[in-house]
Amino acid sequence: MNEKIRVGIVGYGNLGKGTQIAVSNAPDMELVGIFTRRDPSSVDAKGTNVYKSDDAASMQDKIDVMVLCGGSATDLEVQGPHFAAMFNTIDSFDTHARIPQYFAAVDNAAKSNDNVSIISVGWDPGMFSLNRLYAESILTKGETYTFWGKGVSQGHSDAIRRVEGVKNGIQYTVPVQSAIDRVRRGENPKLTTREKHLRECYVVAEDGADLSEIERKIKTMPNYFDEYDTVVNFITEEELKAKHNKMPHGGFVIRSGETNGGANKHIIEYSLTLDSNPEFTSSVLTAYARAAYRLAGKGDFGAKTVFDIAPALLSAASGEELRKKLL
Amino acid sequence: MNEKIRVGIVGYGNLGKGTQIAVSNAPDMELVGIFTRRDPSSVDAKGTNVYKSDDAASMQDKIDVMVLCGGSATDLEVQGPHFAAMFNTIDSFDTHARIPQYFAAVDNAAKSNDNVSIISVGWDPGMFSLNRLYAESILTKGETYTFWGKGVSQGHSDAIRRVEGVKNGIQYTVPVQSAIDRVRRGENPKLTTREKHLRECYVVAEDGADLSEIERKIKTMPNYFDEYDTVVNFITEEELKAKHNKMPHGGFVIRSGETNGGANKHIIEYSLTLDSNPEFTSSVLTAYARAAYRLAGKGDFGAKTVFDIAPALLSAASGEELRKKLL
Repeated sequence: MNEKIRVGIVGYGNLGKGTQIAVSNAPDMELVGIFTRRDPSSVDAKGTNVYKSDDAASMQDKIDVMVLCGGSATDLEVQGPHFAAMFNTIDSFDTHARIPQYFAAVDNAAKSNDNVSIISVGWDPGMFSLNRLYAESILTKGETYTFWGKGVSQGHSDAIRRVEGVKNGIQYTVPVQSAIDRVRRGENPKLTTREKHLRECYVVAEDGADLSEIERKIKTMPNYFDEYDTVVNFITEEELKAKHNKMPHGGFVIRSGETNGGANKHIIEYSLTLDSNPEFTSSVLTAYARAAYRLAGKGDFGAKTVFDIAPALLSAASGEELRKKLL
Repeated sequence: MNEKIRVGIVGYGNLGKGTQIAVSNAPDMELVGIFTRRDPSSVDAKGTNVYKSDDAASMQDKIDVMVLCGGSATDLEVQGPHFAAMFNTIDSFDTHARIPQYFAAVDNAAKSNDNVSIISVGWDPGMFSLNRLYAESILTKGETYTFWGKGVSQGHSDAIRRVEGVKNGIQYTVPVQSAIDRVRRGENPKLTTREKHLRECYVVAEDGADLSEIERKIKTMPNYFDEYDTVVNFITEEELKAKHNKMPHGGFVIRSGETNGGANKHIIEYSLTLDSNPEFTSSVLTAYARAAYRLAGKGDFGAKTVFDIAPALLSAASGEELRKKLL
């Protein structure tokens, strides 16, 4: 490639900022601009041009791949098909139950307009999905386990902050070490929700709030906490800001399988330990942006997932270099 | 697919036997036969038809993919191009320095005859290579470490057995735990050969042999042992047969990287713990046989490596099922 891949970013939250960093580190990419629903003049994008989202339509000849950095809850179901009609796109859509509909809508928009859209990119869905697929394709007999954490769950942190008397708070999802150890030993245990993860909360209470009532409300909250062992720690706002100001995450995908009728056991394990969930996720998005650009060049249009992408397409290096250095 | 993928196996050693097991467990494959240089009537293949290697040429319309289960040292450089001219093939070629030449020779044979040949499939090269590629494409700034073991090295075991006074023996490659721990902590250490692995030998000596001389010869053997800390344990033939009769192996690929100018660190780790190296390797070969068949169906001919294969091609499940169950 002589020309650099021209990348646009839609949305300038944590993911958008992470993508900006990742694109700036890619030798074969340049960042054309950030597209936002806010007033562009109000966004300090560290030197990158900022445009209104609506301006994107007139810039189709200036951008090769658009990285959609909105959230699954509200943004992507609209933005995904909208931008796939105009650009090659990458997104991190993660509302699992709605992936079939989302895939179909994006596929239709992308195919009708000769674009490539890789959906549900990141680490789960994303790298964890890939590892489930590789491991199950190789060890066809066995069990797959996914553990998440230790890491911050945005949804659970939001849920805590909605409890009466709570001023601020954060929630960590923590995998149960003894459960991981059993899986690694090849025991193939049946594990309940409670046996796999526990939930650790750090809560700043309002002055004069009833702490035991806050704790009770959190621990019994349906869907979020009631099926888990939950620990609630009350701390000061200062401590929260000093010690809980990052967004770490990670987890484990473990396949425990066998060959030769059970005579031999095998464990495949993939794990991530991430200081910054959004910066890692956007690093994955950026690698797949390269793949989308290349697939579009081959005319292989439509919606894709990480399952459909040959690994070599993610790297800036040539096939020859990859075989020499990494095979 | 209504019809099953018709698989042939060339060579009936450990890898060939493992492939026979893996194909028998694949719902969408059938094993047509085993091809050997030995007298077919002398090979007990547990009910599978056995043919002479030379008979393969007349069976091109009966076999969709040939899995080449010979060794890299002597067999594959001849067998690879030979069979790639007649069949879609999979092999585990692992003589790293010779991969470029081997790739070119197989590519030429495969392309000239409209076949697909996936070379260097297994776990290293293979799954470890893939994980190096994925991890370096995502975390572009960082260091990648590969540790092997604990596992049996065939080459080092052979080297021990050639020492005067040695009746039998086996060698385990053992990764140094403290080195792995340093890498996991994100220290990005520079590690020497000696700091990464040690070598554990179990040796059965001939009656009356000079044990200290055997130990000295092993520990100072150039290329094999002199750059490592080596432990030599003398045991009886009975103990060797009872406790060292499997071919376990495994290892770790760890990428320690950073984002945002080093403000955030991330660790990606992939590890394997295998009771049977050949049975796991042949499980990988079998999954890639499925991919070779599918690529041939699309007319995407030539030599490939694991880097070129979209993960979904490895699974018997449809894209829709994969998105639903594993994404």
